[in-house]
Amino acid sequence: MSVFRSSRFARLEPYVPGEQPRERKYVKLNTNESPYPPSPAVTEAARAAAEGANLYCDPTALKLRQAAAAVYGVDPACVLPVNGSDEILNFAVMAFCDGRISMACPEISYGFYPVLADLHGIRLRQVPLRGDLTVDYRDYLSRNCTVFIANPNAPTGTVLGLSEIREIAASNPKNVVVIDEAYVDFGAESAIQLTKEFNNLLVTRTFSKSHSLAGARLGFGIGDAGLIADLTAIKDSTNPYNVNAMTQAAGIAAFGDNGYYMDNCRRVAETRDRAAEALKALGFSVTDSKANFLFVRHPDIAGGALYERLRERGILVRHFAVPAIEDYNRVTVGSPEQMETLIGAVREILAPNGRE
Amino acid sequence: MSVFRSSRFARLEPYVPGEQPRERKYVKLNTNESPYPPSPAVTEAARAAAEGANLYCDPTALKLRQAAAAVYGVDPACVLPVNGSDEILNFAVMAFCDGRISMACPEISYGFYPVLADLHGIRLRQVPLRGDLTVDYRDYLSRNCTVFIANPNAPTGTVLGLSEIREIAASNPKNVVVIDEAYVDFGAESAIQLTKEFNNLLVTRTFSKSHSLAGARLGFGIGDAGLIADLTAIKDSTNPYNVNAMTQAAGIAAFGDNGYYMDNCRRVAETRDRAAEALKALGFSVTDSKANFLFVRHPDIAGGALYERLRERGILVRHFAVPAIEDYNRVTVGSPEQMETLIGAVREILAPNGRE
Repeated sequence: MSVFRSSRFARLEPYVPGEQPRERKYVKLNTNESPYPPSPAVTEAARAAAEGANLYCDPTALKLRQAAAAVYGVDPACVLPVNGSDEILNFAVMAFCDGRISMACPEISYGFYPVLADLHGIRLRQVPLRGDLTVDYRDYLSRNCTVFIANPNAPTGTVLGLSEIREIAASNPKNVVVIDEAYVDFGAESAIQLTKEFNNLLVTRTFSKSHSLAGARLGFGIGDAGLIADLTAIKDSTNPYNVNAMTQAAGIAAFGDNGYYMDNCRRVAETRDRAAEALKALGFSVTDSKANFLFVRHPDIAGGALYERLRERGILVRHFAVPAIEDYNRVTVGSPEQMETLIGAVREILAPNGRE
Repeated sequence: MSVFRSSRFARLEPYVPGEQPRERKYVKLNTNESPYPPSPAVTEAARAAAEGANLYCDPTALKLRQAAAAVYGVDPACVLPVNGSDEILNFAVMAFCDGRISMACPEISYGFYPVLADLHGIRLRQVPLRGDLTVDYRDYLSRNCTVFIANPNAPTGTVLGLSEIREIAASNPKNVVVIDEAYVDFGAESAIQLTKEFNNLLVTRTFSKSHSLAGARLGFGIGDAGLIADLTAIKDSTNPYNVNAMTQAAGIAAFGDNGYYMDNCRRVAETRDRAAEALKALGFSVTDSKANFLFVRHPDIAGGALYERLRERGILVRHFAVPAIEDYNRVTVGSPEQMETLIGAVREILAPNGRE
């Protein structure tokens, strides 16, 4: 830290992304990426866009908004593409929170929400989960503040139903309710159609998981045109050309191949459910995840120890050194082969002598 | 605007980018893009990166920082890659300005500085230019606030020398001095080497103009490792994966082809100087631009009128409806052919009967 940093950021604690080690080839099950590559049309679209990248990209991302609108069944004015969904979360905190409007989110959830609250000096109420690590929607009724809920939640994978989200939106008519649907395509119900009914409901999406584009950085905010206009004003005041030409083109092509990606999501969900059964058979507790990860603990080995022993074996999972969930590990659902490798390694680690 | 927008943004006036019309093919001389395409290595790098974009990009952009460091002659810890240089300007305002630390910049300069000050509620002193539209460096000595100067300045193209920048940095030891070098490669001296001497000097760069990558969105902050650490903390608190995989790869490839791009910059500078002479011969006043644009006015036609008549002829330039410079137009330096088209059209417009 320099002597020049504004005193309001003296104790800033940035988000710490999952490891992206480059020194060794790991079975990488730690950052919820898709095991399936982008479709060929996406690669070709990115290449063609790079060829013309001496010209600026469209700052309004019109064609991408039109493609998103067609797939999501909304108006293009109800969609804002962003440089990964972290950006729309940041814009939402800026636009809809301030010294008078605080935030609420689950205590165990995406670690970026507290970082954003801290960055912008917003008071944050972190609401405890139930004992079984599920979100109790009743905790978010009539909160009188901006609500952020990941659905499915992370790193637990549990879901709220649409009727519960509807009640949350209806009971907070003066505040924005943000439903972060980063993982929705793996088995939860989307609240996008509810955005037509509730002008205070903002749904956020990312192509990082469901559409094999974590590296391309593409997210969306979807909601009432009024909310989207607010977020667009923030975008145009911080970074008007926020989504680059290659990513806009890749996104349009990915929407064009939506069936391929939805098939991949179904394959991941099947792999997830099979892996969950296999881990339960080994004695793990497994939350009821509808996301592309499992959240697991075992009575015989601490979460941190399991993480370390998997890492030694070349398998990366994610362990959060947070008291409430330190017994757990979050395991991304990779390919069937990757999950077999994982389960084999776990079986070895759990065997009485460390080897079967 | 929705009823949910924080009251602090009730009167937010976002940046208005230059037109990017899609309805008609224009000779596009309005947003300072390069007329030359990215090199083939850049296109191929973007394609290959898209192929693997199901995995996250490196949030630390290490290889890109190393490539930048080698070309700029600094340590990789002194470089932060960003999603276009607007992003580093935003981070700098966030990190180095607050309720106590105000900003200063030239009154006529990049229109994004006032937008950022407004967004973050920072008091901004806009310092008038001299009568000839040049920046007087003495106006920035011992200012006791964060200083933003574009060098070359925009939209005028005039430059400060390194000795002047040195004096500004030396006389403001408790504040950060940001030198925005978006246009430096077209004929000004870079202050990058001064960042080793002054821990308060931040140089910002973009690949939008000099490296034919406006559409890829790639900028850099270069400065003392302490400043870069501050800016990285802001980056990791707003958007940890800010530069996508294709852009990181394109940037590395572009640094690898740096000679091609520097040759292009020289060609643009030659085209600029020839076009300036031709316009002067037609009676224009032309500022002494070292950038990839000319800033011109003619005694016989108002700036807005010239803009409109060029637009009718399919040529886009940029007119700013700001009293101090409303007589002027900013004309991007395109290819020699584009400049001939422009000058031919201007000659027609100025002819007594509207046609020669």
